[in-house]
Amino acid sequence: MRNPLSEKVACIKPSGIRKFFDIVSEMKDAISLGVGEPDFDTPWHIREEGIYSLERGRTYYTSNAGLKELKEEIAKYQKRRFGLEYNPSGEIYVTVGGSEAIDGALRAMLDEGDEVIIPQPSYVSYEPCVVLADGVPVITELKEEDEFKLKKENLEKVVTDKTKILILPFPNNPTGAIMTEEDLKGIAEVVLKHDLFVISDEIYSELTYGSRHVSIASFPGMKERTIVINGFSKSYAMTGWRLGYACGPKVILDQMLKIHQFAIMCAPTTSQYAAVEALRNGDEGVGHMRDEYDRRRKFLIKALHDMGIKCFEPFGAFYVFPCIKEYGMTSDGFAEMLLAEEKLAVVPGTAFGACGEGFLRISYAYSIEDLKAALERLERFINRHK
Amino acid sequence: MRNPLSEKVACIKPSGIRKFFDIVSEMKDAISLGVGEPDFDTPWHIREEGIYSLERGRTYYTSNAGLKELKEEIAKYQKRRFGLEYNPSGEIYVTVGGSEAIDGALRAMLDEGDEVIIPQPSYVSYEPCVVLADGVPVITELKEEDEFKLKKENLEKVVTDKTKILILPFPNNPTGAIMTEEDLKGIAEVVLKHDLFVISDEIYSELTYGSRHVSIASFPGMKERTIVINGFSKSYAMTGWRLGYACGPKVILDQMLKIHQFAIMCAPTTSQYAAVEALRNGDEGVGHMRDEYDRRRKFLIKALHDMGIKCFEPFGAFYVFPCIKEYGMTSDGFAEMLLAEEKLAVVPGTAFGACGEGFLRISYAYSIEDLKAALERLERFINRHK
Repeated sequence: MRNPLSEKVACIKPSGIRKFFDIVSEMKDAISLGVGEPDFDTPWHIREEGIYSLERGRTYYTSNAGLKELKEEIAKYQKRRFGLEYNPSGEIYVTVGGSEAIDGALRAMLDEGDEVIIPQPSYVSYEPCVVLADGVPVITELKEEDEFKLKKENLEKVVTDKTKILILPFPNNPTGAIMTEEDLKGIAEVVLKHDLFVISDEIYSELTYGSRHVSIASFPGMKERTIVINGFSKSYAMTGWRLGYACGPKVILDQMLKIHQFAIMCAPTTSQYAAVEALRNGDEGVGHMRDEYDRRRKFLIKALHDMGIKCFEPFGAFYVFPCIKEYGMTSDGFAEMLLAEEKLAVVPGTAFGACGEGFLRISYAYSIEDLKAALERLERFINRHK
Repeated sequence: MRNPLSEKVACIKPSGIRKFFDIVSEMKDAISLGVGEPDFDTPWHIREEGIYSLERGRTYYTSNAGLKELKEEIAKYQKRRFGLEYNPSGEIYVTVGGSEAIDGALRAMLDEGDEVIIPQPSYVSYEPCVVLADGVPVITELKEEDEFKLKKENLEKVVTDKTKILILPFPNNPTGAIMTEEDLKGIAEVVLKHDLFVISDEIYSELTYGSRHVSIASFPGMKERTIVINGFSKSYAMTGWRLGYACGPKVILDQMLKIHQFAIMCAPTTSQYAAVEALRNGDEGVGHMRDEYDRRRKFLIKALHDMGIKCFEPFGAFYVFPCIKEYGMTSDGFAEMLLAEEKLAVVPGTAFGACGEGFLRISYAYSIEDLKAALERLERFINRHK
């Protein structure tokens, strides 16, 4: 029998996060600080709306782009929170999580050989999705000395004649870094100068501490060249509902919607009804969760510093990204040994790009009690390996 | 600003079904026999299981491939219904409807220039998904004189050195045609002779009338070269839940799962819990719906024949595909005029491929009362245009 596989696809490595947690799930008494999802159940009023929709028999397809009332609520939300104005009819569509929207944007925009700039460390799906869409990923390193921000001059260095898209992953998973209005201004200048497009993954936009998220789409001239990706998974603790959305210029959204129509049909109906409720009445719940994450963030940073572990203070998402270079182990080695010796799981920084070497991703989407128990194990481990 | 769009994607035409129904949705008093989804709400015991899962706070990601218990139930179901044995760990994964599985199978298997044989008339997404995956769609016509079955000799005619995959869309949307064991035997021979792979879209496998569905994967040597696509939308009236699955050889499923992991993450959690219930206790409900569709099928076929409209008798899915060639109009023309004059919407056969010219797709996923009202309009129309 001949080889059934696409050459391109077979070359893509599976996610380094998942590989690691397959081991964890088999291990008794292991503690994990590895998972990238909120530890909160979806707030009850949102779940209740999902339940109502099932009771009422709303079990049919919605239109391809999503429920009209959901698109309208998304438009209001984007205006209210980020000052962005999108027409719900044509400039917004509802997707299966942020993931589908990222994949769809790349498929809709890339021709073979087009280069896509991906700042790393960053979320695991950008690079494979670029390859799947026949694009060429061009990595630019986010450095701890820059607070893991994308610097204008570093971006400028990797732009070529073939560059078409910049992926902008802030607030960042895994570093927790955010970009301020001032930081983004320089990036927007480079994008405009070179006539690039931006896929701005703003899935953690509700989770910033001490300042409000700013979207690059809000800069002059940028809305028409930016696809904003957002969703409900992180902000409303709705990961399992699989619901996200994209906002952007109609000319691009039309193509994304066409792919969505053929490859997905529509986002889950129950989730769409629940999401309407989330946007209408969810602010308070989001605020509570944000406060709780912030409390854990401060606790975790202080504990790491007290242990003598170097760690940049992040102001977004729910991750810290401590540096473990001084322990003389690779990220993979550190994480594997920590799991073997102390049954504590964290994600090696290299899962998010080669430049994550020397770092670990630790999630604080866990209760303070769980964090305390985990930190005891970590402290024992580093004291032994100093 | 430069052109933001992928050349390949921009060339793909949007679905001809949706285009038509955008007009219908604006029209007062219109009756539609056009939609391709069950008119039944999801059976209550299945919805209830979805509700329980929300009450219990099961709002988190599942593993990428889907809930273990769901994959196990799918394995049991495939064995029980079609005699196919799949290992739930590695040979089955859960997708966002059959749509995602079709797209995923093509992405996982195609390299640029690989040819994919698509029998038409058939579902609208095969051809664009092949193009999106850099493949070359090769159309073979299903003819009314062959009862819209794929004939071995017609398949043989379009196989070339570049052929990699055959898409097998039976029970068929839009014709309602099915393939018997005997019909499939010849197809399997051609597939084996030329070392092809098969994507068998069996989403309507529960909706056959008078005989049981047979899967091509059950023939000797075929399981290892067939991806079986199935799901919950049609059989359990669960379209809005967006839940399907693929079964097939691990070597291919591994690649499909990798794409799924990056581009989708996992299928909706609530839907997965509900689907477990559907497979465990849904047979009776499926039986009731099947009986009801069969009653309507017979009613509709008789009514069309009584009106003097030529129509092949279909034994699968919930569509009839009457021939309207003698009215001297194109399918598009007929459908448009029928909508304008009688406010009755049906889908032109050409929405499912150029060889659908001269036919209409009429769905009987409507109550007998609705069908009666619609048929009155159709009869008035054809009497006027004889």
